[in-house]
Amino acid sequence: MADYIVLELIKSEGLAHLSYLVGNGTQAAVIDPRRDCETYISIAQSQGMQITHIFETHRNEDYVVGSVALQQRTGAKIYHGKALDFSYGNPLSEGDSFEFGSVILKVLETPGHTPESISLVLIDKSASDNPLAVFTGDLLFIGAVGRTDLFPERAREMAGLQYDSIFSKVLPLGDHVLLYPGHGAGSVCGSGMAKREFSTLGYERLYNQALQKKDRNSFIEMKLAEKPHRPPYFRKMEEYNQQGNAPVLPQLPTPSPMSAEQFKAARANGMLVLDVRSTEAIAGAFIPDSLALPNDLIPAYGGYFLSYDRDIGLVAEGQQQVETAVLHLMRLGYDRVKGFLAGGMRSWETSGEQYDQIPAVHVDKLVERIRAGADFILLDVRKEEELEKSGKLPGALHIFLGDLLEHIDEIPKDKTITTFCGSGQRALVAASLLKQNGFKTVEDSLGAMEACQAAGCPLEKVETAP
Amino acid sequence: MADYIVLELIKSEGLAHLSYLVGNGTQAAVIDPRRDCETYISIAQSQGMQITHIFETHRNEDYVVGSVALQQRTGAKIYHGKALDFSYGNPLSEGDSFEFGSVILKVLETPGHTPESISLVLIDKSASDNPLAVFTGDLLFIGAVGRTDLFPERAREMAGLQYDSIFSKVLPLGDHVLLYPGHGAGSVCGSGMAKREFSTLGYERLYNQALQKKDRNSFIEMKLAEKPHRPPYFRKMEEYNQQGNAPVLPQLPTPSPMSAEQFKAARANGMLVLDVRSTEAIAGAFIPDSLALPNDLIPAYGGYFLSYDRDIGLVAEGQQQVETAVLHLMRLGYDRVKGFLAGGMRSWETSGEQYDQIPAVHVDKLVERIRAGADFILLDVRKEEELEKSGKLPGALHIFLGDLLEHIDEIPKDKTITTFCGSGQRALVAASLLKQNGFKTVEDSLGAMEACQAAGCPLEKVETAP
Amino acid sequence: MADYIVLELIKSEGLAHLSYLVGNGTQAAVIDPRRDCETYISIAQSQGMQITHIFETHRNEDYVVGSVALQQRTGAKIYHGKALDFSYGNPLSEGDSFEFGSVILKVLETPGHTPESISLVLIDKSASDNPLAVFTGDLLFIGAVGRTDLFPERAREMAGLQYDSIFSKVLPLGDHVLLYPGHGAGSVCGSGMAKREFSTLGYERLYNQALQKKDRNSFIEMKLAEKPHRPPYFRKMEEYNQQGNAPVLPQLPTPSPMSAEQFKAARANGMLVLDVRSTEAIAGAFIPDSLALPNDLIPAYGGYFLSYDRDIGLVAEGQQQVETAVLHLMRLGYDRVKGFLAGGMRSWETSGEQYDQIPAVHVDKLVERIRAGADFILLDVRKEEELEKSGKLPGALHIFLGDLLEHIDEIPKDKTITTFCGSGQRALVAASLLKQNGFKTVEDSLGAMEACQAAGCPLEKVETAP
Amino acid sequence: MADYIVLELIKSEGLAHLSYLVGNGTQAAVIDPRRDCETYISIAQSQGMQITHIFETHRNEDYVVGSVALQQRTGAKIYHGKALDFSYGNPLSEGDSFEFGSVILKVLETPGHTPESISLVLIDKSASDNPLAVFTGDLLFIGAVGRTDLFPERAREMAGLQYDSIFSKVLPLGDHVLLYPGHGAGSVCGSGMAKREFSTLGYERLYNQALQKKDRNSFIEMKLAEKPHRPPYFRKMEEYNQQGNAPVLPQLPTPSPMSAEQFKAARANGMLVLDVRSTEAIAGAFIPDSLALPNDLIPAYGGYFLSYDRDIGLVAEGQQQVETAVLHLMRLGYDRVKGFLAGGMRSWETSGEQYDQIPAVHVDKLVERIRAGADFILLDVRKEEELEKSGKLPGALHIFLGDLLEHIDEIPKDKTITTFCGSGQRALVAASLLKQNGFKTVEDSLGAMEACQAAGCPLEKVETAP
Repeated sequence: MADYIVLELIKSEGLAHLSYLVGNGTQAAVIDPRRDCETYISIAQSQGMQITHIFETHRNEDYVVGSVALQQRTGAKIYHGKALDFSYGNPLSEGDSFEFGSVILKVLETPGHTPESISLVLIDKSASDNPLAVFTGDLLFIGAVGRTDLFPERAREMAGLQYDSIFSKVLPLGDHVLLYPGHGAGSVCGSGMAKREFSTLGYERLYNQALQKKDRNSFIEMKLAEKPHRPPYFRKMEEYNQQGNAPVLPQLPTPSPMSAEQFKAARANGMLVLDVRSTEAIAGAFIPDSLALPNDLIPAYGGYFLSYDRDIGLVAEGQQQVETAVLHLMRLGYDRVKGFLAGGMRSWETSGEQYDQIPAVHVDKLVERIRAGADFILLDVRKEEELEKSGKLPGALHIFLGDLLEHIDEIPKDKTITTFCGSGQRALVAASLLKQNGFKTVEDSLGAMEACQAAGCPLEKVETAP
Repeated sequence: MADYIVLELIKSEGLAHLSYLVGNGTQAAVIDPRRDCETYISIAQSQGMQITHIFETHRNEDYVVGSVALQQRTGAKIYHGKALDFSYGNPLSEGDSFEFGSVILKVLETPGHTPESISLVLIDKSASDNPLAVFTGDLLFIGAVGRTDLFPERAREMAGLQYDSIFSKVLPLGDHVLLYPGHGAGSVCGSGMAKREFSTLGYERLYNQALQKKDRNSFIEMKLAEKPHRPPYFRKMEEYNQQGNAPVLPQLPTPSPMSAEQFKAARANGMLVLDVRSTEAIAGAFIPDSLALPNDLIPAYGGYFLSYDRDIGLVAEGQQQVETAVLHLMRLGYDRVKGFLAGGMRSWETSGEQYDQIPAVHVDKLVERIRAGADFILLDVRKEEELEKSGKLPGALHIFLGDLLEHIDEIPKDKTITTFCGSGQRALVAASLLKQNGFKTVEDSLGAMEACQAAGCPLEKVETAP
Repeated sequence: MADYIVLELIKSEGLAHLSYLVGNGTQAAVIDPRRDCETYISIAQSQGMQITHIFETHRNEDYVVGSVALQQRTGAKIYHGKALDFSYGNPLSEGDSFEFGSVILKVLETPGHTPESISLVLIDKSASDNPLAVFTGDLLFIGAVGRTDLFPERAREMAGLQYDSIFSKVLPLGDHVLLYPGHGAGSVCGSGMAKREFSTLGYERLYNQALQKKDRNSFIEMKLAEKPHRPPYFRKMEEYNQQGNAPVLPQLPTPSPMSAEQFKAARANGMLVLDVRSTEAIAGAFIPDSLALPNDLIPAYGGYFLSYDRDIGLVAEGQQQVETAVLHLMRLGYDRVKGFLAGGMRSWETSGEQYDQIPAVHVDKLVERIRAGADFILLDVRKEEELEKSGKLPGALHIFLGDLLEHIDEIPKDKTITTFCGSGQRALVAASLLKQNGFKTVEDSLGAMEACQAAGCPLEKVETAP
Repeated sequence: MADYIVLELIKSEGLAHLSYLVGNGTQAAVIDPRRDCETYISIAQSQGMQITHIFETHRNEDYVVGSVALQQRTGAKIYHGKALDFSYGNPLSEGDSFEFGSVILKVLETPGHTPESISLVLIDKSASDNPLAVFTGDLLFIGAVGRTDLFPERAREMAGLQYDSIFSKVLPLGDHVLLYPGHGAGSVCGSGMAKREFSTLGYERLYNQALQKKDRNSFIEMKLAEKPHRPPYFRKMEEYNQQGNAPVLPQLPTPSPMSAEQFKAARANGMLVLDVRSTEAIAGAFIPDSLALPNDLIPAYGGYFLSYDRDIGLVAEGQQQVETAVLHLMRLGYDRVKGFLAGGMRSWETSGEQYDQIPAVHVDKLVERIRAGADFILLDVRKEEELEKSGKLPGALHIFLGDLLEHIDEIPKDKTITTFCGSGQRALVAASLLKQNGFKTVEDSLGAMEACQAAGCPLEKVETAP
């Protein structure tokens, strides 16, 4: 029995997804649970509480929401905004209110990120009937606001709704109100978030850059000028999270260890080899035709390159990396992880099978080459906004990593390609994609733009697209 | 990938059930898994192995075997002796053999405890093709042998089969062979086991008391003279473990916290209140009509007093006790744990509800009373073998705890009843049963026989039943 | 390396002491560390940070501060307010400022609770140079303010200073500023705290009852009217925390298991037997002359009854209770825990030694007795403020638990004494003290005032002392 | 209080060092504790036991024994063989005997590995007064016997003593006796151990290859023919373990995170950069002049290349690798780990600093080159016994890794050097040493001999040295 009010933030690293468990006495609610929902149950249990309510702030598009899974485990009821036709759960309207001991959660309809987005106001009735905190989902973040481009044909309308929700509904709750958003820095659901998980409405009102456009029209224009990327897996997430039909996994999947021989055979039968080791380890030796995606890139980039229709076999360094990969993948709905290479890359090497490497090129050398007019392609795969912010090396060809496969024909196959990004990590993914697509001479510039900045490379300014 | 041979003993406390995970390379087997089978998967996973085989040494009668549950999680195949018609799994015959890296497991048919009992011989083929260890199930324990009374009409035959299995099949494997049995001390499947989990065939051959009857007939007579108790829940276990139809629980049940009010209401609706706290805590205050069964007595005595057809509500001290109780109960197949009293006994006390206590009587006082010819009933609930071994207090009425409800009418309701056992713990259970059945004045002699022995109480010898 | 700003609250249960680890990049600070400081190191290490600074908001009087211990482990520098002559660490003045990646901590001198009290303002310079949060030590709590009675001769002055610190320094930081105080509900350093660990200056300005006296004089009068208790161990804590001379324990003490015989012998040699089990377990059976102090009462009441000059032997139920007791005791500076009774209370009972019980009396029975004018003493040991708030049973004798030993001669030894408090828990401590002091017939009213309220007992109003 | 006999094997991975905790009731002994001795205390505490005795089977030469550290924590007494003049602890003689509940440990003097080596016979007196198990230290392993070359001038004598100890003292305890040795496979204290941690004297008598020389002289000749390597750090271990003067570390060291800049500066001041990442990760990018020693090679090879007089800075992938490295290093007495590169290798790359790579050469390519008579050096760094067992590639130059620095002048600096070993891992260490010593063109053959065997490379037989 929780004597104190329990308010726990549960963060899914990589996705930078923030979910919450709030409770008091014997009852608790979970807001935007993730699919691997054991955590919430453990917390509730350790406090002698039962999870009775699950709230979704909106139909999440970037991960599989865990509401149905958590409901199966706990019997809790699911609630979400009434402005979308969900195939499960119960609709909420402005003013609906729920009690958990001394805690009251009260619904605000706050469209903008999506039409059905809601915010939940937290009241501690033992102290006051007025708001103490607010859960804003993807409407308002710490240091940023949510994206409003998910309904392209309604982009202007959504931006306006977001302005209204923030300025007329949320901020008026008061400067003193604690802010609990649905994402932190690194999420694909917004950009510019602060690297911090605590703030208040007053602090955001004053210092959140996105809230300094206090005029409705300027706010809308600001939002319309943004061009966030939309990974293809969003479609699957939207389906899952509207229909509630993502498979419920009673436990985390436990992929099987596979010998080098079994691994090779499975690959021959169509299994995708996914290498989740560090950039350096992959550069040092990898299985030809594998997809390089170091574990911490899976949440942001897995959805561009992975298919829901194909088995996956992991190359990892140790059991912990296998488990992290499985977790990241299942949060994006990729459940077909068939196995992992037992004994890691070394067992491949010692089996006599072929392996490949990616040479690394220091930025000093790049600068030299550029100065010397060397004949090579410097492929920069960063986001446009990064180029605009930091500039680029002279002569670099720019294709955003997420768009690389679409534009791969624009890259000459017979030249040396040196991939480039912020630190060299995404460049490795690009290098891997090029290798998979038949490019022979591919290098990665480890250190990349950050090394350029530290080393004082000559950079070109990149014009902001109109 | 397990470089070393992995051999892990997994013990279920209380039941004193010993299960094993054996593996090498990428494959592992589990022998006699328990129902909460997550442990095996974790161990295998941490070693980079996959569980591919499940062996049952026999149809276990004292707990729900976890084979089907573990199979659902891992896809492993199940195997057991061919002499019983199981509704699941695959039959094994003498000489069948399985490989896991350098480990070979080879089947011996070793009837005795049950007709289909098998033993599994472990060979490390990297060292020799000869036996290194043997898993004997309930045939041969450390310091004892398994019971042979489970088929009363075939008691003599089973005892003889057991003699043959031990003396003609298992012991001949060699003195140097390591022994891995299915139970340790405290199990209801045998008595006299050593409080130790390591031994060899040679050590047992030399020092196991039950193996000193080297003559077949004397061995059989020794076994026939034993009168082990047979808790009524065995029938359910036998059904579950033959049919394989125990419900598979994807996770451990998580009972809900219930307020004193909810708890009272549920009790009114037929929920059994099960108090799993320590003897002293129950003696200090308990809910009238609850069943007192401190957690560590559940495995041995739960099966006498609990019903499969009734909800259970727990009174515990802290979350850990709740979880232990749930574990003990589910291993016996009691899955209907509805909830627990949130806030523990104190929340009952502060709710204004009635509570009761059990007064404790020191053995000095008992002796005084007996000497003075006081008018009270001293009810000794130990097993007959304990009385035979240690004697009893003069005038004590003996009814074994497991038989108490059947014989409750033999106890006068209008007298003070002082319950008595080895240490006072089972006496408390007896006191609780008496209270539930309308006895008004009930006391418990904390310390009981052990205190008597320490204090030098005058004891009467008890004749061995013919 | 912490990419995100790390802000972790570390709570010491029982003391309701809140400490904090704040950091970014490779450096972190700890504010008001506890003596068992491993936690801070683990958190820092898991984030790739090093603890380089330790701040004390004031000379803590209710627990042994862990600054020196943490300094020995990490090499960090210690800082505290300059208005007290500490024998260790470095003095801080208004405006001093420290950087940890993007975090700035800036000193405010905020006397009131003590003269040298400081607050630390947190700034996230990546977002703004203005305050985001404030650590207020024992100046301002969530729902309450710190006590100002610790310098009795300067009571009025301290209350005034506190007013000024709160209203002229802290609240002006802005409504939007997050509040991180030094204690939560249950601490002996204040009363009326909210059962919640998140708030803002604005929320407190609006709803903290103690801040509604907005006039300086009324605020001072309010503070002067309070009469908080001051346990005798405060003197030791003040010495330790000013001199920095509490022994540094490299690890948590691990008391030795002692057989009943060893335990008895040690008791004969002066060891205090401290029983930390639950109220009910102690009531059910305890060792004569032991001090009953269930684990969760140690932080608030241990300092009244324990001596720094005497060995302590624990009676506990399981290893977890032993460890919790050791932790609670060492935080109060009680390091002489010699051992614990191996096998718990049962091993005492079975050794043939004497034990005692405390009968429980339901409030219904108390009311009956009072109505019938029965000849017994109802001893209410709650705090005066509790009596004033809830009233008392007619005829009850009131002596606050902390004052019981001083006033024990006022209680007639020849009568039945029934102890009483809020729930029955402190009443048990009182009963234990009476038993130790030769009272023969002592009972505890389990449920006590809360049961009275639930059951609707007739209560008398208690006049507020002028 | 341990009801059961507790016998826990505590394994130090890498060193393949096996230590044991044995106890019953309230007392326990530890045999050959490691320096990080918290584990033993935790196990004892969790079982309600106190560690009262510490036994050393001999003066260990391959790791810092933890006896003094454990004594400081527990107050236990230390014991070792009387035939060496230790500066701490108490001498043991044949027949000395110690009781822990029902466990008796009895001393056998069993010289051979060292003169003062003892074995400890375990008796469970509740079952029999005869031996149940024996702890043999480095006398007798599972599948092998200990080395007898540590006193070169007495080599023949020691081999003879070992024969006598095994054949006249240990084996006669009986085939049924369980064997608990001081090391497992991978230890530098013997070779040929089985990859298994359970055996009996009988099984060893029958199948341990080293025990098949049943004649004393043949046994001695067999031992004298062995040429085990003796890493230089043994001298330090021998000093520490005889004097008992290794520093006692109250906790595991926690190295500080260092920015790339700090790391570079410390390196300039003499800090050794030790790269403990995986072979592939190091091959992919490493800091010039660092020593490559993947974590799992530290126990066996750290003692060849590390100095006790120099600070160490780690390059690792994640906190876990840092902690593992610290553990491995402190077990060998390397306590000067100053810090680790915060953010790992990537932070070095992005700082603009230079990095290097090691190209990998597949064995197919090696064979091609050899066939084509290419001008390169194939440097095989395996142990002589490995070459004798598996052969070598034609033309390979053989220098054992541990001897590489001594013989480095024998390798031509102007040629391409391709390093080679069993799997490519030690080859990477060799490549790193060559790079540090000014070799420009260095490659590593990942997969190495194992890949050769899988791929069917042509191999040359290597003659056994006479």
